[in-house]
Amino acid sequence: MAAHRVLILGGGFGGLYAARALGRAPVELTLVDRRNFHLFQPLLYQVATGALSPGEIASPLRAVLRRQRNTRVLLGEAVDLDATRRLLILSDGRLEYDSLIVATGSETTYFGHDAWREAAAGLKTVEEATMIRSRILHAFEVAEREEDPQRRKEWLTFVVVGAGATGVELAGALGEIAHDTLRHDFRRIRPEEAEILLLDGSDRVLPPFPPRLSAAAERLLIEEGVRARTGVRVVNIDECGVDVQTRTGPERIAARTVIWAAGVRGSSFGAVLARQAGASLGPNGQVAVLADLTLPGHPEIFVIGDLAYVTNETGAPLPGVAQVAMQQGDYAARQIERRLRGQAPLAPFRYRDKGQLAVIGRAAAVADIFGMQFSGFPAWLIWLFIHLMYIVEFSNRLLVFLQWGFLYLTFNRGARLITRTGRNHSAG
Amino acid sequence: MAAHRVLILGGGFGGLYAARALGRAPVELTLVDRRNFHLFQPLLYQVATGALSPGEIASPLRAVLRRQRNTRVLLGEAVDLDATRRLLILSDGRLEYDSLIVATGSETTYFGHDAWREAAAGLKTVEEATMIRSRILHAFEVAEREEDPQRRKEWLTFVVVGAGATGVELAGALGEIAHDTLRHDFRRIRPEEAEILLLDGSDRVLPPFPPRLSAAAERLLIEEGVRARTGVRVVNIDECGVDVQTRTGPERIAARTVIWAAGVRGSSFGAVLARQAGASLGPNGQVAVLADLTLPGHPEIFVIGDLAYVTNETGAPLPGVAQVAMQQGDYAARQIERRLRGQAPLAPFRYRDKGQLAVIGRAAAVADIFGMQFSGFPAWLIWLFIHLMYIVEFSNRLLVFLQWGFLYLTFNRGARLITRTGRNHSAG
Repeated sequence: MAAHRVLILGGGFGGLYAARALGRAPVELTLVDRRNFHLFQPLLYQVATGALSPGEIASPLRAVLRRQRNTRVLLGEAVDLDATRRLLILSDGRLEYDSLIVATGSETTYFGHDAWREAAAGLKTVEEATMIRSRILHAFEVAEREEDPQRRKEWLTFVVVGAGATGVELAGALGEIAHDTLRHDFRRIRPEEAEILLLDGSDRVLPPFPPRLSAAAERLLIEEGVRARTGVRVVNIDECGVDVQTRTGPERIAARTVIWAAGVRGSSFGAVLARQAGASLGPNGQVAVLADLTLPGHPEIFVIGDLAYVTNETGAPLPGVAQVAMQQGDYAARQIERRLRGQAPLAPFRYRDKGQLAVIGRAAAVADIFGMQFSGFPAWLIWLFIHLMYIVEFSNRLLVFLQWGFLYLTFNRGARLITRTGRNHSAG
Repeated sequence: MAAHRVLILGGGFGGLYAARALGRAPVELTLVDRRNFHLFQPLLYQVATGALSPGEIASPLRAVLRRQRNTRVLLGEAVDLDATRRLLILSDGRLEYDSLIVATGSETTYFGHDAWREAAAGLKTVEEATMIRSRILHAFEVAEREEDPQRRKEWLTFVVVGAGATGVELAGALGEIAHDTLRHDFRRIRPEEAEILLLDGSDRVLPPFPPRLSAAAERLLIEEGVRARTGVRVVNIDECGVDVQTRTGPERIAARTVIWAAGVRGSSFGAVLARQAGASLGPNGQVAVLADLTLPGHPEIFVIGDLAYVTNETGAPLPGVAQVAMQQGDYAARQIERRLRGQAPLAPFRYRDKGQLAVIGRAAAVADIFGMQFSGFPAWLIWLFIHLMYIVEFSNRLLVFLQWGFLYLTFNRGARLITRTGRNHSAG
């Protein structure tokens, strides 16, 4: 009998954990991704702010899985599905499967305002991260040469839209750049006078965290020179600023650098699943799955990670974080193995929440973990420890952490390159 | 009296050394570059082959010069010159000067065949390096999925045109990728069967080196799996291969990845100097300068580095290497200082040749240095030591060398990212 063919679509946390859990299973495993690397997304904001290079948070998928003899890795873009004949259609070929694990993740959404994308980049890919890096550094360069004080102020105003973990971390790192890293680099402007605004429509930063930690985060942000403005709804974004609606009325914020960290939705492969396998999509583009993470009527198709709509015991949807994706990847892999062995299926998937963390700046973070709450330096140590463990697991590039230690000691951000991927480059 | 204004155009080795030599002089110093970083060009081939990230060989110019109180750094693109009124015209402004040091370097030339650029990228910028990296890695990915053996072979054939130091180093690193780094990463193809061809029109590799070292380099290249073909003239390059003229007649080499390391010419600012300051340009676009590196009739304009045409005692032109640029930068700076102090001018510039080096692969190099010749591991140690000294001087990122040591121990090339800057990305 030919080996059972498992096809994993996507090499993020979910797909990679599923692949590793099946590393010794008697299956023929194929992992397909349109990129040749796994990206350690939680540190992408450090690329956007010049502390790390893209290569330092990316591991080639082939290298990560090279020891699994039952596994092959293919570079390819999935465009369609034939669920009846069990074929995944790529832009340049097709792949047969017996079990399919879809882990294509999420993408930035502008909630219908796609025109904002041009002025306010999201932070999901390495290309977006290096573009944001170029825009931030370029803004300081233009400000240094600008004679007009009003325009100089616009170039030194940075707006981060969305005060979830990504927005908070990005704003904190921006504060660090302006107040420490670039402090002595300019002659005319004083980078520490840069204004960094963090906007959110809800009434506090880090809404998913306990209110006590939101308050702590806001204090830590102020120390980093970031001003959080909550209860502020963005109504328009263009190249010169942001129009907002506040509790007291409309307002215009003049700013030449705007970064979008306000929302993600299920990736576009969800629409293929809806069309070809009868999946239902939630308002956020996520795919509704059964309690065992499979599609109704298609027990051979698992959907995991950010693309899957799964609720916890209280009915709240699970957050789009690496933890959830990894546990789901592991679950799908074990379920497939049990089926092959003829064992009873696993109990419904249940997320074991290990807590949440957000870094605000140098040695400052908030953590809600093991039922306890921390802020400041202790939270940062927890953050460092947890990330260290994962990085070591995914890659043998311990150097990332040496580099971090170095950065911490020297305030230096060496990867401050303005490369030609941004829009503001008439002068560069 | 207002301070003497020195304007340096270009932050490569020449411009940066001039700026540092003037760091304590009683001048008002401005360094203008269109990029915000100094690039350590000699290691750029390591970015193109995935061993280093761009951020690891680039130092922000502001950071390098932050301690010089008399110095400001500006991001700007020079487009013209008013030599009479002593104004440098930028795309978005103008700068006055009393002394001007032009150090804009060189650019890739296709000797009139600009159509080849699309198929065969040069290796001068970080963007080109990451594009070449993407193309190389992408070729292995396509080969892994290609059913047709002939087409698979074309994707596994890599041609480097030009066997100077850059071409030799790039080909050697390619051999290393195929034979060591990727060896266990694929299932269908065997990366070590990749064919790596190094073409040159002259009769040996590394023509500027002594013949004995050229022969040693060729042997080391063979050990890395690179086949050097000399006496081969390229007559056409397209997306599917290279047409060459050999001693025995015309030949077609089918290859999907071609890299151009065959020639550079003086940068385009040379034409501005010719038009606005009466400079004469050599056939290679280089600017003829007087024995003190100034332009005839313009003692206040120095031209240094790759852009300057300078000969040694035997009448041979100086090579376009960092050594020459650094010594010239230093010379121009000292000359300006002597003038300000009313001292007699320096004797004509004379290049103190410290030797030349080329790395061929892991722990293999050739060196012609201090009048002695080395090949293999001893040459590599010399190379390592010299580069270590320069890197430490330019940046505090010692980590590059930790990383190198690590790479050496593990055969790993972690920065293997295919990013979206290349052409071959229909599937990626």
